This record gives sequence, structure tokens and C-alpha cells, in this order.
Amino acid sequence: MNQYDICLIGFGNVGKAFAELLEKKADHLLKEHSVGFRITAIATGSHGNAINLQGITATAAIAAYQHGDLASLSTESIEDDMVGFIRASRADFLVETSPVDYQTGQPAIMHIQSALSAGMHAVSANKGPVVHAYQFLTELAEKNRRRFLFESAVMDGAPVFSVFREALPGAKILGFEGILNSCTNLLIEKMESGASFDDAVAYAQSIGIAETDPSGDIDGWDAAIKVAALVTVLMGVPLKPQQVDRTGIRAIGPDMIEQAKVAGKRWKLVCKAELNDGKISASVQPEMVPSTSPLFAVNGTSSLVVFRTDVLPGLGILESNPGPDTTAYGLLADMLNILKTG
Amino acid sequence: MNQYDICLIGFGNVGKAFAELLEKKADHLLKEHSVGFRITAIATGSHGNAINLQGITATAAIAAYQHGDLASLSTESIEDDMVGFIRASRADFLVETSPVDYQTGQPAIMHIQSALSAGMHAVSANKGPVVHAYQFLTELAEKNRRRFLFESAVMDGAPVFSVFREALPGAKILGFEGILNSCTNLLIEKMESGASFDDAVAYAQSIGIAETDPSGDIDGWDAAIKVAALVTVLMGVPLKPQQVDRTGIRAIGPDMIEQAKVAGKRWKLVCKAELNDGKISASVQPEMVPSTSPLFAVNGTSSLVVFRTDVLPGLGILESNPGPDTTAYGLLADMLNILKTG
Repeated sequence: MNQYDICLIGFGNVGKAFAELLEKKADHLLKEHSVGFRITAIATGSHGNAINLQGITATAAIAAYQHGDLASLSTESIEDDMVGFIRASRADFLVETSPVDYQTGQPAIMHIQSALSAGMHAVSANKGPVVHAYQFLTELAEKNRRRFLFESAVMDGAPVFSVFREALPGAKILGFEGILNSCTNLLIEKMESGASFDDAVAYAQSIGIAETDPSGDIDGWDAAIKVAALVTVLMGVPLKPQQVDRTGIRAIGPDMIEQAKVAGKRWKLVCKAELNDGKISASVQPEMVPSTSPLFAVNGTSSLVVFRTDVLPGLGILESNPGPDTTAYGLLADMLNILKTG
Repeated sequence: MNQYDICLIGFGNVGKAFAELLEKKADHLLKEHSVGFRITAIATGSHGNAINLQGITATAAIAAYQHGDLASLSTESIEDDMVGFIRASRADFLVETSPVDYQTGQPAIMHIQSALSAGMHAVSANKGPVVHAYQFLTELAEKNRRRFLFESAVMDGAPVFSVFREALPGAKILGFEGILNSCTNLLIEKMESGASFDDAVAYAQSIGIAETDPSGDIDGWDAAIKVAALVTVLMGVPLKPQQVDRTGIRAIGPDMIEQAKVAGKRWKLVCKAELNDGKISASVQPEMVPSTSPLFAVNGTSSLVVFRTDVLPGLGILESNPGPDTTAYGLLADMLNILKTG
């Protein structure tokens, strides 16, 4: 058996789900993959940090987090700055789950850079580093003979990146269309059931789908950064969220919802990208889609992307009922794929 | 560069598309994968066989096939029996595209067995060997340090097998639901547009989707063998098509089509499998699905399967606009995946 130590950045819903998934899957990982994973360092924004080279269990971490004091689990002295903390963790993997920054991708980029430079693999659920530093971090990883993967950054644990990297050699992506933002999809659905925009937002906030400031979702930034990530990585053309032609869902009112219903259609925030003559055009726009479109039945927080490639005219990947567990699985899958291919 | 020779069994639409795809992708394969592929043997049911160790181009093969005489391309004496032919080809890969036999899986099983025993890898678009000899052929491959893969056997080139094998380590499949037979899906759609059952069948035959005897599709055998293949390989429980609770689409008449339309629903031939307490229940049955189901918008010859796994509650794979090219790509992807993982 090979034992690997993990430095976990962020201990929100995803970080907790990841710690629990590792324990739930421990027997399977040992039996099928001959590996054991152990979290030996956790850093949080405001609940303290811990390094414990004996390993930190999910239960202990959750309890300490609830008391606002992860530092109580630490057996080592903790560096003040994150670069020092990551280096001091001496882990094999960095698992990055800090909140996204749409404009800069920081501080996640710095975390990943520190890990790769210190000889760790880095896996991330954060879109920021993918759109703002994909090439830099991938080259840095190669230089250090390590890997940087980020399956969970788009569509949680659904294999949108790995299916092309691992399973579909030789396929060239020419474009895609999809629904990539769960929050707006849920908001529109609530409005279809008669809720006002504000009530829909309040509901989405109450179940943890919308943030306190929901503008990142509503104005299409989250969708745009996901489009940019897919284009950058899968189509090989660096694209920033600002370059995506972007309209959010603020203009969709009860009359428009009604108009769609009468026509047997639904409003959806549709993400698109196309490669034409070597140039990318990308957009995020509300569209009325008919029931004959695969986008029509993407309900609630589900998501779907349909790729057009030179060898498969239409390949769709659908994710339904995602949650923090799903994102956590994407992180674990990245780690196992790294170990598989070395 | 590594050069690999291919023995191709079957030169129907898929075999031809495969030969053309190899030539279309030759530059890419050389540049990105440092490999070259060459077809050095072709066997057909009734258009002769050829072995030519200098390589047979797609153009030459198609021309010779049209004249009903592949043997004119042969530079070697040709064995009468297929076991001898495959062995004499001295190829690195067997590519199997012979027609399916639902009940026995032959002669494809024998072709693949001969290839593996002679030290070749085998890739197949044929469902028969998968449901009737998966374990036997996989063990034989392991014994000979070769691989047996069959991505194109279900949903053409869409990565239903490879996504779990290559991209989703540690995921356990608990069940699935989908539309796996293109022909019946197209027939129902034609009936929705007002065609009679017989007219719909005639149309499907005219575009090459239905066979002269379309009962394999209409009575649900093709769907059942695909369900059996997915269960056998992905859920690890050997299942024969005969064990799938199967009803075809013969009972669906104009009144039922109308009834569904009034209810805002569509008839679909729905494939299902569930694992409960270690036991599999599997079915192929017509169902009226509502527009809120992802199955509703599966149009024409498209197909969709939604898996329920322990780590991803709903992961769907959608294929739209498939054709012989798509199946051919699945064969090539299998070959590249074999070379990647050795």
C-alpha cells in the first residue's frame, strides 16, 4: 500500500464532504487501488489552521471547526502565511477548495503554485486558477513532474475534463452548448412555479444554492467563467470570463415566463462556444428553448453540456442532483487519475 | 514512431468508416500520439478476403469491395478458415465489425479468441462477445498480456465504458435508465408525425437504420443486449439478454401516440437496470415520459443513458447524430486507450 498525505485548503461544505468521502471510501481505495489517503493539514479562512502529521479525522476536524478552533488539533507550530503553511505541511497532495475570485483567481493560484513548487500534486475545485493561470500552473507542474487537475471546477464531479483527457484520445472539440450555472436554472424554475424573482432568490439562498450576494450567478459571471475554463482547457484557446458575451437573467420577468409557457418553451441561461477559422466566439445568454432540446429538461440544480467534436457530432454530459459530495468526488477522482498515470 | 498493423473483420459501413478515419486522422495520430496504423488484412462475409503486408488503403479496399473481390488486393495466400486467416495476418490489432448474433455471439467470439491467442489486441463494435463471453475473453486477454475493448458496442463512440474505466475511478454504479435503441426511437418519432407503423419501418429501412428483418430492434432484443452488456461490464454481474424483462414497441398504435401527445408526453422504449441487495433487475419497456424527463428530448437516432452511482447521483451520457463514423471513432479510441495504458 502507498500512503499519501493531503493538505486541505478550505473547510466549507466541499472540504467537509471531501474529508468524509475519504473515510467512506478508505476500504475501497485500499482494496482496489492499494492506496491510503490521510489529511495532515487543514487551512480555513476564519476557523484556524492545523498541521498534524499523525492525520486528522473528519470527525475531529468538523468538531474543532464548529468550535472555531482548528488550531487545537495542531501538533506542529503553524506558519502565519499560506506559502509557509503549505510548505510546512509536507503533504503529497494539495486539495484546494477556497472560494472563487472571478477577477484574479487569487489566492487559489498562489496556493497551487506553492504546492507545485514544493513538489506536491495539486487538485482544485476552484475555477479561478483554471481561467487565470491554467498555462502557468500546468507548465509549473510539468517542470516539477507533478500534476494540476481541477475536474470539480465545472459541473462538480461530472467528468467534463477527464472524459476528453482520459477516455477520448484524438477528439477535437469544435464547440459546445449547455447549462452550467445551477443557481440561475433553479431561480427560473421557481419563477415558472409562480415565485417572484426576489422570493426565488430568497429560496435559493435558504438552501445554500445562492450566495448572500447572488450577483455572480444572476449576472452570468459564474456561467461565463465556466465557459472560459472549458474553452481554455478543452479547446486550447485561452479565454477570460470578460471575453464571454454575457447577459444574466435580471430581465426575465413574469410576462416572459408566461410567454414561454404558452409557447411550450422554457427560459434557460444558455452557455455557448464555437470555434470558427481558429477564432472562438463564446456567450452566456437567456434563451427560450423548445421541449425538443436536451436543455429543456435540465431541472433544478442539474446541468448539461453538449460538445460538438470532429469525431462525435454530439456528445452530452448531464449531471443531476449535484451537491458537495459530488464536488468532493471530483477531487478524489483527480487524485486517483494522477496516481494512475503518474 | 510506433507502427501497428490491423486485421479488420467486416467491411460494411463501419469497417469502411474505420478505414477512412485512420487515414483522416493519420497526421494527428503521428503528431500527438507518435503512432501509425496500417490495415494489412481485411475479411468480409461475401466480398472476399485480403492480406497485404504493405498495407491496404481505404480507397483501394472500397474499390475492390465494390467489385466484389477483395482477394485481388492480396499478396499472400489466404487461409480458408477465419482462425487461420487471423493468425496469418500477423497483425497487432484485430478490429471486429462483423454482424451481431444475439443468441450466441458467434462467430465474433471465435475471431476475438483467435486474435488474443495469437498475441493481438482485440477491439470490437459487436455486442455479442460482450454479453456472451466478456469474462472468458477478458481473462484470455490478461493471460496473453493483451486487451479486449468494445466501446462501440453500446451507443457507438460515446464513452459509456471508457468513462468509468478511464475517468471515474472508485465510482460504483447502482443503476441506470436510458434510451439505447436508435431504431425504435426513430420509429416512434415517425409515428408521432402521423406515419403508420409500416411506413415508419419502411422509412427507417430506406435510410439504413432498420434491417430487412427489423424484429431485433422492434421486439427490444437490441436494447436488451445493450442493457445486458452495460450490467455485465459496468456493474460486474453477468447478465444475458434473455434475463432482461423485455417488451418491444409492436403494441404502440396511433391511439396511444395521440394519448401521449394530449398529455404532453412521448412514448419511449426505456431501458432500466437496478442493483438491489446484490441482485439485478433489468427491463426494456415502452413508457410514456413527461417533458421534464431527460429522455423526452432524445430525438431520432440519438441515445441517452443516465447512471446512478454512489458518488455521482445522476451522470448522463448523451449521443446525438450518430453514424458509422461515430462507431469507427469508438474503435480507434479503444486502440489508443490500449496503447496508452499498455
